[in-house]
Amino acid sequence: MLAERARPAHYPSLMTTLSPYDSMSPVNRAAYRAKAAAADLAPLPRAVKDDALAAIADALEVRTSEIVEANAKDIAKAREAGTSEAIIDRLTLTPERVRAIASDVRDVVALPDPVGEVVRGSTLPNGIDLRQVRVPLGVVGIIYEARPNVTVDAAALCLKSGNAVLLRGSASAYESNTALVRVIRDAVGGAGLPADAVQLVPGESRESVRELMRARGLVDVLIPRGGASLIQTVVTESIVPVIETGTGNCHVYVDADADLDMAIDILINSKAQRVSVCNAAETLLVHQDIAPEFLPRALDALAEAGVTVHADPRVLAYAKDSKATVVEATPEDWDTEYLSYDIAAAVVDSLDKAVEHIRLWTSGHTEAIVTTSQQAARRFTQLVDSTTVAVNASTRFTDGGQFGFGAEIGISTQKLHARGPMGLPELTSTKYIVTGDGHIRR
Amino acid sequence: MLAERARPAHYPSLMTTLSPYDSMSPVNRAAYRAKAAAADLAPLPRAVKDDALAAIADALEVRTSEIVEANAKDIAKAREAGTSEAIIDRLTLTPERVRAIASDVRDVVALPDPVGEVVRGSTLPNGIDLRQVRVPLGVVGIIYEARPNVTVDAAALCLKSGNAVLLRGSASAYESNTALVRVIRDAVGGAGLPADAVQLVPGESRESVRELMRARGLVDVLIPRGGASLIQTVVTESIVPVIETGTGNCHVYVDADADLDMAIDILINSKAQRVSVCNAAETLLVHQDIAPEFLPRALDALAEAGVTVHADPRVLAYAKDSKATVVEATPEDWDTEYLSYDIAAAVVDSLDKAVEHIRLWTSGHTEAIVTTSQQAARRFTQLVDSTTVAVNASTRFTDGGQFGFGAEIGISTQKLHARGPMGLPELTSTKYIVTGDGHIRR
Repeated sequence: MLAERARPAHYPSLMTTLSPYDSMSPVNRAAYRAKAAAADLAPLPRAVKDDALAAIADALEVRTSEIVEANAKDIAKAREAGTSEAIIDRLTLTPERVRAIASDVRDVVALPDPVGEVVRGSTLPNGIDLRQVRVPLGVVGIIYEARPNVTVDAAALCLKSGNAVLLRGSASAYESNTALVRVIRDAVGGAGLPADAVQLVPGESRESVRELMRARGLVDVLIPRGGASLIQTVVTESIVPVIETGTGNCHVYVDADADLDMAIDILINSKAQRVSVCNAAETLLVHQDIAPEFLPRALDALAEAGVTVHADPRVLAYAKDSKATVVEATPEDWDTEYLSYDIAAAVVDSLDKAVEHIRLWTSGHTEAIVTTSQQAARRFTQLVDSTTVAVNASTRFTDGGQFGFGAEIGISTQKLHARGPMGLPELTSTKYIVTGDGHIRR
Repeated sequence: MLAERARPAHYPSLMTTLSPYDSMSPVNRAAYRAKAAAADLAPLPRAVKDDALAAIADALEVRTSEIVEANAKDIAKAREAGTSEAIIDRLTLTPERVRAIASDVRDVVALPDPVGEVVRGSTLPNGIDLRQVRVPLGVVGIIYEARPNVTVDAAALCLKSGNAVLLRGSASAYESNTALVRVIRDAVGGAGLPADAVQLVPGESRESVRELMRARGLVDVLIPRGGASLIQTVVTESIVPVIETGTGNCHVYVDADADLDMAIDILINSKAQRVSVCNAAETLLVHQDIAPEFLPRALDALAEAGVTVHADPRVLAYAKDSKATVVEATPEDWDTEYLSYDIAAAVVDSLDKAVEHIRLWTSGHTEAIVTTSQQAARRFTQLVDSTTVAVNASTRFTDGGQFGFGAEIGISTQKLHARGPMGLPELTSTKYIVTGDGHIRR
């Protein structure tokens, strides 16, 4: 028998809220095709994905000249625009660099496939078998600046983990990225996988980024990689879930019981081994008991490394007798990520005061303690809440490669989903598989 | 020597962007105090947290009359407003119910503490010891509707996992929640923990929810629990990271090779054991080969369970000879979460067509297949991408209690951070601890 139609609550799904494909914006169309490709990628076994990655590496080498020629156009445009040589260097692709990028792709082939890993499993009291297994996230959007090698890195890591990727590089690398993605898509398609698994987001304008940030339901996660203002924009404006990466206001704390030689080594390595990276130290905190012995040596060592010290009054007291370049610190210095040969420095009354300073000012990336005291090491690691706490080691170790992950899609500084260097497992989600023999709930 | 001050890039931290405490809004002040409390909670050992939980359970029992009296005011107001008896029942706290809530808190005492668990660890080739350990998220905001038992549940789970919690219940339970939180805070303070670890978000207006959604840097995660419109609002408007919970448009697919008795049992249990919950089935898909045998029986069984069937034309063909109440399905039915004695039903040509239907319309909660075919079970679990895929088991098992987690803060339907039922580990993040002997990076 037929009855009157009920009027249930209706919550429109993605399918009823999406406009028809033909009337979608170019960005949404790309995302829609990525979502379809992601569904095809998800169940693929490792061997199929590895073959596609090997094909990409080969194609990059075979078609190097096509890539380098496209890159030359970007470089010419950058020179015209008066771009600094440092940035032009980061943008430049030589045949050697393309070979190195292809070799990085082969390294990804060698990494284990995270998809299918059983994260947790048990037989429930009622006999149901419960398994939690890793599955791809689906569609990953990467918004990044300058370096065209990120285009290939991100595509390789996403493919290996069964994800489709939407790449939104900077306008300054448009020709290079277009050529790289063309080569990758041809290789992916040639290996029998959907070419739409790797796409450049159409459009060079800011509007295409805004559309990507609103493509909830089509895009599963956005990962911004670049400067603080890019990341801030994506984090505050996106309704697609975001993994925040990268800002690093890292601290080195030299405890009362530190080995002085070790403290100097770790300070100089953390600050000056490479200054432009997020895991470089930006603030030095020194326990008052060791300051008279440590600071004169530290200031000289920083001077030798070419580092300018932004000193609080208690550090300043040691400056006159040193070779160091020292300026008075303002409160602003405590939350500055210099990314240059500069460091803020303060003397603190105790380990707890160091922790308090760090809690107030850190961006939550990496903090190091140098100490010979087991209690101090334990208390510092317990109280400091950052992605990484280093004991008697340089802040510079916070890195997917250094951690042995084999690859890194970025360093998450947020607490949800992934924290710290992100490798392949961080590009996955999980699903539960419940297997019964007709089990019903009583 | 002193030098000219450099002009580094300055990215203001939370500390420089926050207004002074006294000029903060009441919601931000609460969040600020929660953040301070969270820092104190993080390093606490399990025994201290368990003592506080036991004190909460005791206090709930000792002060039951105070709670029931406050609850009576909410109920009187709800009656005045003409609230339905079903909702009044959900709102009501009797002495028995308070005792049950206290008993739930004691169950949380018995659960293992996720904090401190070593998730991953290794010694790197250079001799550095690397450990990834679970740490609390920090400040968790819960926005929820109606039931006052959520107030206590959420507080207990957050405390156990070392998190401070900001509770934003519905205005209709304001008196009950105020009394419950007063009792909890007294117990927490009495146990020597910061009372601000548990706070009711001040203000009954929508504005207080909006402020909570903008408290990025103070609040680490928001978990909305309630109807679809609440969740939708939080997910699209919050700049604090959100864990999306709850909407469930769950499917039961009866394969060509299904055991018919089992299929009937699972269908009826999934749909009608409890209709108002997110893991109840909302759509039945039947393989065309088994439809002639299965559908007449299924329609009768659904009729007996009091379920109205929203049928596609191929299901409709079987309706005339059955006792079932059947209406013609419209496309809208495929994405409707009825939460009532209604089910949408369609015949599909194949397993792959069933998967296609599910992919298009599911909210990604739980899908079940009934089949005796190993290949069909394998293909369905591989291709369906939802928090839970059930093979020969009811959709109703997707639940933290059923999964053996001992407690549940909600069911995540998103892919980031947590997916499916969330227990205590899902209320944590991790940090890396790097231990060396003066290691520096070369």
